[in-house]
Amino acid sequence: MSDWLDEIKWTDEGLVPAIAQDANSGRVLMFAWMNRDSLALTAEKGEAVYYSRSRRKLWHKGEESGHIQIVKSIRLDCDNDVILLSIEQTGGIACHTGRESCFFKTFQDGQWVETDQVLKDPKDIYE
Amino acid sequence: MSDWLDEIKWTDEGLVPAIAQDANSGRVLMFAWMNRDSLALTAEKGEAVYYSRSRRKLWHKGEESGHIQIVKSIRLDCDNDVILLSIEQTGGIACHTGRESCFFKTFQDGQWVETDQVLKDPKDIYE
Repeated sequence: MSDWLDEIKWTDEGLVPAIAQDANSGRVLMFAWMNRDSLALTAEKGEAVYYSRSRRKLWHKGEESGHIQIVKSIRLDCDNDVILLSIEQTGGIACHTGRESCFFKTFQDGQWVETDQVLKDPKDIYE
Repeated sequence: MSDWLDEIKWTDEGLVPAIAQDANSGRVLMFAWMNRDSLALTAEKGEAVYYSRSRRKLWHKGEESGHIQIVKSIRLDCDNDVILLSIEQTGGIACHTGRESCFFKTFQDGQWVETDQVLKDPKDIYE
């Protein structure tokens, strides 16, 4: 029973983009990639598992920081080539910089301004 | 003054992924790509302009359907390689299938289920 995985239009590298949205606040927290194994594991475990392109391996979000993502729902778009996860963010921090969301820079008057607070020093997250 | 565009980590094809989120409902509506020109135009016009990879040209969202996206804010992620737009969706329909969001399929019991209603017949949108 993995027909649902076959329906996805994977890239030539066997990946699909994935967006993680906070189930409570509605904030978009991060964007990452998944391969077939990571999406299968995400559905099986109920926790977000991505594929790290830089490290070329599965990346169980929170494996180092403890900031795992509990998956509430998995959605697929009209073209079958983008995944949207609704998640509960353990610790309230998705970004490796210690912020709630990775999208903390806002375009203002012709430049990118850091508009979100750091909630926890990364040194205290990754020990 | 286009330093802000230089800060973006474009793909080898000169693109950056862009997520559009409804400023009012918080729903993630769609995912598309932008090139440098499309992002510059988005900021300038205050309306979402993407780059269509299949048609290989700029795509002013809503140019055919009238469902333009009024841009409320533009955010950038920690890695400088993903854009998040907060938008007001004219007509309340972002998807070419006539639904509010492109993410209308939900994973349920091992399969993708269409969980969102069609709000308007595409035949009546694209004439």
